Amino acid sequence: MNDYQPSRADKFSFGLWTVGWQAQDVFGGPTRAPLDSVEAVHRLSDLGAAAVTFHDDDLFPFGSDDATRDHLISRFKDALKATGVRVEMVTTNLFSHPIFKDGGFTSNDRAVRRFAIKKVLRNIDLAAELGAETYVLWGGREGAESGGAKDVAAALDRYREGLNLLCAYVRDQGYDIRFALEPKPNEPRGDILLPTIGHALALISTLEEPDRVGLNPEVGHEEMAGLNFAHGIAQALWHGKLFHIDLNGQHGPRFDQDLRFGAGNLRGAFWTVDVLETGGYTGYRHFDYKPPRTEDYDGVWETARACMRNYLILKERVASFRADPEVAAALEAARVNELYEPTLSEGETIESLRAEEFDVEKLAARGGAFEYLDQLAMEHLLGVRS
Amino acid sequence: MNDYQPSRADKFSFGLWTVGWQAQDVFGGPTRAPLDSVEAVHRLSDLGAAAVTFHDDDLFPFGSDDATRDHLISRFKDALKATGVRVEMVTTNLFSHPIFKDGGFTSNDRAVRRFAIKKVLRNIDLAAELGAETYVLWGGREGAESGGAKDVAAALDRYREGLNLLCAYVRDQGYDIRFALEPKPNEPRGDILLPTIGHALALISTLEEPDRVGLNPEVGHEEMAGLNFAHGIAQALWHGKLFHIDLNGQHGPRFDQDLRFGAGNLRGAFWTVDVLETGGYTGYRHFDYKPPRTEDYDGVWETARACMRNYLILKERVASFRADPEVAAALEAARVNELYEPTLSEGETIESLRAEEFDVEKLAARGGAFEYLDQLAMEHLLGVRS
Amino acid sequence: MNDYQPSRADKFSFGLWTVGWQAQDVFGGPTRAPLDSVEAVHRLSDLGAAAVTFHDDDLFPFGSDDATRDHLISRFKDALKATGVRVEMVTTNLFSHPIFKDGGFTSNDRAVRRFAIKKVLRNIDLAAELGAETYVLWGGREGAESGGAKDVAAALDRYREGLNLLCAYVRDQGYDIRFALEPKPNEPRGDILLPTIGHALALISTLEEPDRVGLNPEVGHEEMAGLNFAHGIAQALWHGKLFHIDLNGQHGPRFDQDLRFGAGNLRGAFWTVDVLETGGYTGYRHFDYKPPRTEDYDGVWETARACMRNYLILKERVASFRADPEVAAALEAARVNELYEPTLSEGETIESLRAEEFDVEKLAARGGAFEYLDQLAMEHLLGVRS
Amino acid sequence: MNDYQPSRADKFSFGLWTVGWQAQDVFGGPTRAPLDSVEAVHRLSDLGAAAVTFHDDDLFPFGSDDATRDHLISRFKDALKATGVRVEMVTTNLFSHPIFKDGGFTSNDRAVRRFAIKKVLRNIDLAAELGAETYVLWGGREGAESGGAKDVAAALDRYREGLNLLCAYVRDQGYDIRFALEPKPNEPRGDILLPTIGHALALISTLEEPDRVGLNPEVGHEEMAGLNFAHGIAQALWHGKLFHIDLNGQHGPRFDQDLRFGAGNLRGAFWTVDVLETGGYTGYRHFDYKPPRTEDYDGVWETARACMRNYLILKERVASFRADPEVAAALEAARVNELYEPTLSEGETIESLRAEEFDVEKLAARGGAFEYLDQLAMEHLLGVRS
Repeated sequence: MNDYQPSRADKFSFGLWTVGWQAQDVFGGPTRAPLDSVEAVHRLSDLGAAAVTFHDDDLFPFGSDDATRDHLISRFKDALKATGVRVEMVTTNLFSHPIFKDGGFTSNDRAVRRFAIKKVLRNIDLAAELGAETYVLWGGREGAESGGAKDVAAALDRYREGLNLLCAYVRDQGYDIRFALEPKPNEPRGDILLPTIGHALALISTLEEPDRVGLNPEVGHEEMAGLNFAHGIAQALWHGKLFHIDLNGQHGPRFDQDLRFGAGNLRGAFWTVDVLETGGYTGYRHFDYKPPRTEDYDGVWETARACMRNYLILKERVASFRADPEVAAALEAARVNELYEPTLSEGETIESLRAEEFDVEKLAARGGAFEYLDQLAMEHLLGVRS
Repeated sequence: MNDYQPSRADKFSFGLWTVGWQAQDVFGGPTRAPLDSVEAVHRLSDLGAAAVTFHDDDLFPFGSDDATRDHLISRFKDALKATGVRVEMVTTNLFSHPIFKDGGFTSNDRAVRRFAIKKVLRNIDLAAELGAETYVLWGGREGAESGGAKDVAAALDRYREGLNLLCAYVRDQGYDIRFALEPKPNEPRGDILLPTIGHALALISTLEEPDRVGLNPEVGHEEMAGLNFAHGIAQALWHGKLFHIDLNGQHGPRFDQDLRFGAGNLRGAFWTVDVLETGGYTGYRHFDYKPPRTEDYDGVWETARACMRNYLILKERVASFRADPEVAAALEAARVNELYEPTLSEGETIESLRAEEFDVEKLAARGGAFEYLDQLAMEHLLGVRS
Repeated sequence: MNDYQPSRADKFSFGLWTVGWQAQDVFGGPTRAPLDSVEAVHRLSDLGAAAVTFHDDDLFPFGSDDATRDHLISRFKDALKATGVRVEMVTTNLFSHPIFKDGGFTSNDRAVRRFAIKKVLRNIDLAAELGAETYVLWGGREGAESGGAKDVAAALDRYREGLNLLCAYVRDQGYDIRFALEPKPNEPRGDILLPTIGHALALISTLEEPDRVGLNPEVGHEEMAGLNFAHGIAQALWHGKLFHIDLNGQHGPRFDQDLRFGAGNLRGAFWTVDVLETGGYTGYRHFDYKPPRTEDYDGVWETARACMRNYLILKERVASFRADPEVAAALEAARVNELYEPTLSEGETIESLRAEEFDVEKLAARGGAFEYLDQLAMEHLLGVRS
Repeated sequence: MNDYQPSRADKFSFGLWTVGWQAQDVFGGPTRAPLDSVEAVHRLSDLGAAAVTFHDDDLFPFGSDDATRDHLISRFKDALKATGVRVEMVTTNLFSHPIFKDGGFTSNDRAVRRFAIKKVLRNIDLAAELGAETYVLWGGREGAESGGAKDVAAALDRYREGLNLLCAYVRDQGYDIRFALEPKPNEPRGDILLPTIGHALALISTLEEPDRVGLNPEVGHEEMAGLNFAHGIAQALWHGKLFHIDLNGQHGPRFDQDLRFGAGNLRGAFWTVDVLETGGYTGYRHFDYKPPRTEDYDGVWETARACMRNYLILKERVASFRADPEVAAALEAARVNELYEPTLSEGETIESLRAEEFDVEKLAARGGAFEYLDQLAMEHLLGVRS
């Protein structure tokens, strides 16, 4: 019997800012005391996580002097060493300090843009030192509340300039690090640049070294735009760009809820795990969520445990779905596999296609048989079959 | 005094299916009689439109024999000739007939995919014959209601295959036609492939002849995902991909309302016109909307008149905004123009940037001055300044 | 072992218009042939349904002469008799025919309002004859696309007038029928009057005979407004107004998807069943959904089967959740039961409350323990515990 | 010529927490220094506001000792006296301190509920002392993130208990104060109780002294649920329950943007002003918004100025719309006034209605003429007619 107990091989990873979120929001102050990063590493290790991730400001407060910074990094490294937890991804906080109120790389204020790049570069060095393979860039404040305040074309020029510069830097330094852009449609800005997986993919296609840059999509961010997350990451994988992932939960278009994975759109989570497990994704299963403000630290650790547990339950259910012979038959009946076949046969010309006659009414009458297939998925999800 | 009277030089264009919509919806049958395409051309011409556009099935019913088709095309051509109205864009109906219930280019049913391509090819020939420069592809039923029914990677393979084939065809035929993809997030399918401007741009970057394919974004489609339409088309222009546009109105995430241009998000319409008029777009201002089901034909023609009139009013207001010296000063104060300046100076190295010291508190204290600028825009929109 | 096989005792009910939907939408014509109501009754009976419901126009086409109407009713009654299926609810179609394009009871056109009431009255007689206990009123076209076209106060006056009149009629006739209003925020109108459960409850409180009128909330309609359906029906029950229910599935704010029950927001469906099964609802479990346009009739019957099956699975899971001792302990820890206790003790005065001193920091530090409880619910839903 | 300069007669009012918002959000700390309430009063007075409003914690920090509290109230009173600005509404902060993390009146924790009521009572005394006529109750944290954590029926019992108690208190004290509930669908809680105008109206109908309680609807809160705000306040007025109003701006379903009035849905703002100015609302025009985090205090005062200015512009435009003879003719053509006429004539019976014959096709063919009317509204809004 499956006890859904995570192991390092499951490659679960947590941001320090998730379990460490003190639960401050627009309408109220923190409800939890600060969490020491060393404790976070130990607790997450005990729960079965394989890795942690962090923004610079999660580890050492913004503006720390070098001694403080070194000290805090040093004891963090000790915790990593003691536990065997690794750092797989690092990122930069370009959104909390008031200096970034109009963004970092695309701030109208050139000095802020320069400061932002400097801040990223320093943390990339630390990422490399810690062996992280992915460096995430969430441009949470790259955007605007009003139409005249941001020239989008100029902002994209600056975004591209910044990314090209970072690529050149890791190349020159010989760092084995890839960048992953994290799209989001809005909040905290009225509208954020690169609002979806698609917009970020499009930007990447214009970079000088596009191979160095991919995506870090987040479940809730796409669902805030009412988009199908599993579809989104499937397209990202199709472009070879799913470099990292942020798993959490959300209830459609509203504020960014950052629920634990599984909460929110559960059927969406099933298909998300299906794409990850069967679509060739090999990276970490990274949770980026916020334990609700109602919880104390017992509740916090419960949410961390539950994120992993829900993933493992869904992984089991996806596997049973994909292994079920009735599902195979239903996929056949729904002609899902027929879509792998090219529309024109090899060597076939347009002329031969145009000469073909079709029995339109007969084709139109064929049922899709999608609902039966979907009900099979539902029942695997619910553990009714298996 | 401006009377907002459209002329051919304004390049206003309407789909035959807009004024000709009989107002059938999910919950009720048509409230208007069919509209003869010849009458549509004449009426739109009288109102000041420069061009019309159509799906094949708008002009001749699905399954028409050749004689009927030829006859209907012939009298349509006569109307074009008589009025001077031109056909600037043509498209294919791959969504109304039941055969397309699972899409066209990405239907699981290979025979349907082949039929869809054949249908498009035939109408491309007509588009070329009529001198259209743009061929729109709206994949309204390319999608799914459930997770297992559509393999997104395979579907994108087939989408790409179809687009590559169409590009090869127009190249081989020597047609002076460019394709424009029209993204939409959902409705009539639960989730549609290429749900936003970004996703479609990303797909295009993978085509064999990407220069032949751009976008036809629709106001309401992006706003159904809560996205900023002006931002979206600004990014499309930045990629050189705003080949065409569908103007209408929408009230955020809900069913596709297809209101007349100006209705719905009016401030968004102001910034949309701003991007079009100042961002280098040279194509037609094409209206794709549905006169509400409550209206008779008097109401229909009123909506067509109002689409153009609202565009001209907004164009005037945008021009006055951009010409206002106080706006220029406010843009300066908001550092909007500073974003044109590269973040690193020409020849500057990362090292010099990293050596720079920043007065963080001083930079953080600088106000954005965006609200004053936005209020100026509001007042130009409302005609309080001018 | 549970085989989730429905029986009459489960009180499952289907609208004739659900399995009989021909799948016409805004963008395309029907994909399915008409379904004979007699066949619908027999098939639903075989699947285990206890009852059917209908709009007048579902049973006999709008404008049928008396002979046709009588004939169609007669053979429908025969099917009911043959199967033992009953009619538990009846409603009126005030939205499909073009005459209702601006609504029925609140149409600006007084003649239309009068015609609408006449149409409802005639079908109430039939409802009474067939023994229906509930008469649903969905004002799908009572609304507007634009601000000036509808005076909301006048429209509410007319709504109230119509409802008062219907109440008087059933009283005078001695019919044992209660009315149930069905709220919806939008679609097919831009905005619909009585957009949510709350707005309809408020209107009812102003009626002459409020006891005769309650609600028929629909899952998807509340979720189109981003509202929590289980919360909504819990409030309706609290007001004693949950007279009937429409179960289906939806993916948040977008077009009205009418998915089979369970699809869409599955966790929401769990809590919906929890409220129905534990909150004192004794009416029919009525499915109001649309089998997707991709499906043929095999797919249609599969969706009908699945609606009931999903309900029974969720009912089992809710029961196991409510029976689990760990859940009981978690509810206690989360102080859920403490909310049953009045805030002031019996006989306590405001003065004594104001005299009380509170250890604010201690109270603030108490964790809610809600996440552990929610994870228990998740695991019951997924069948991991049980 | 109108200079849109506010005067006291315009009854504009601002929350101290609006211009005083320090711009802390979920993702970042404050960008503005605290604002002294005395300065706020003077600045708002200079700008033309007639009144201010506040939460207890806006005026004196949570937990202030009596001396501090008295001192801060005293100098605030001095500012009121010096400027002639009055306090028209007061409210309680039951959401910022961690003690309220699960709400106030409906917290699962009974001690918290008691503390919440005590906190409200004390501030009601202050409200009475300052002459406020309205006391607002926004239950921002009355809600839940998960289904099991809140028994909605019990929560509504406690909500009602609390409101009944407050009503009894003001009655017993002889205070001339009415309560106004402020609905909101979500944020900061996953789902909030009384999510819309309708739900709050419904609750009020169950109170012991319903006449003492009405609504304080907020533009953005209804629009977060995709609801039409003008329709909502029209229904509230129809129930005699529009006791107060919160004016601001929002872009549909997403996080709570709290934009300055006019920003966001501008056409919605036009109809909102129309309902307020022509529907009999006599209360204050109260702005509840947040100056964007990008702004310094110059920007803050600009937004305050702009809220009032936009209201006055829209008021002028509404007046010109309502005074235009072409509008009167268009209203007639759209049969808007016909809705004032009862559907049944005085003394008419159901029988006579049922005997009437209708020319259905003729009625169905009548156009609504709503679009022409709406375009007239658009042109008045834009200042093209006037």
